[in-house]
Amino acid sequence: MEQRISLVTLGVTDVARSRAFYERLGWRGQEVEETVFFQAGGLALVLWGRDKLAADVGVDDSGAGGFGGMTLAQNVQSRVEVDELLAAAEAAGAEVTRPARETFYGGYAGCFADPDGHVWEIAWNPGFPLAPDGTLTVPDFGTA
Amino acid sequence: MEQRISLVTLGVTDVARSRAFYERLGWRGQEVEETVFFQAGGLALVLWGRDKLAADVGVDDSGAGGFGGMTLAQNVQSRVEVDELLAAAEAAGAEVTRPARETFYGGYAGCFADPDGHVWEIAWNPGFPLAPDGTLTVPDFGTA
Repeated sequence: MEQRISLVTLGVTDVARSRAFYERLGWRGQEVEETVFFQAGGLALVLWGRDKLAADVGVDDSGAGGFGGMTLAQNVQSRVEVDELLAAAEAAGAEVTRPARETFYGGYAGCFADPDGHVWEIAWNPGFPLAPDGTLTVPDFGTA
Repeated sequence: MEQRISLVTLGVTDVARSRAFYERLGWRGQEVEETVFFQAGGLALVLWGRDKLAADVGVDDSGAGGFGGMTLAQNVQSRVEVDELLAAAEAAGAEVTRPARETFYGGYAGCFADPDGHVWEIAWNPGFPLAPDGTLTVPDFGTA
């Protein structure tokens, strides 16, 4: 299996509501058959009805909601961008689940949850090289 | 907010077990402070204790487990690769949650769940251009 991800799909309650949220944050995508595709670097972020997603992948959805055990992160180039982006997310209707603060690794980060509770961490991490095109490189920790 | 994802973090019960699973599939990463980082194209796939992840992002984890409402997909270049990869995942200990089959969009895809229930769809989708380096491009659907 190659080490890459082609799509990240967020199961959502209301595709229009979720799309509007991401559009308020500046994302632009295309909707096809009640599915929204956003180009996100070399992959796609997809919004799709949670019930359809569960059925499609062959799993039962207890509908419990809450924390799903998988989170997304966007690293940015500076502390001030962390603050700005969290403020923008809150203004767009997100819940800030963890205000920005210093991190143990010498960075600065905070988190928000989108309308369906999908969590994004917004981080400035000087230890993880971030190219101008947004490509992130895992540093060589000298471990295996 | 830029349209990109820097990290996808999978909250797991047992980091060593989860790492061993992905290594059986050929992934190679680095472990730092009980966190495993895999370079995955222009982003990182991260394995971290689910309890630590929930605490870090500031959300309660009911511990319900089950479907988390967010899935990953890897698109491949052919039907046979879908079959091969699902077989490899099953051999590595994954549960195939949906055997490979034709899809409504003219492709071929199946799904597996990793040891913590995180779902991957493996898909051959002739409508989504996949570059040799694994970069996926959302096609122009002519919609907005």
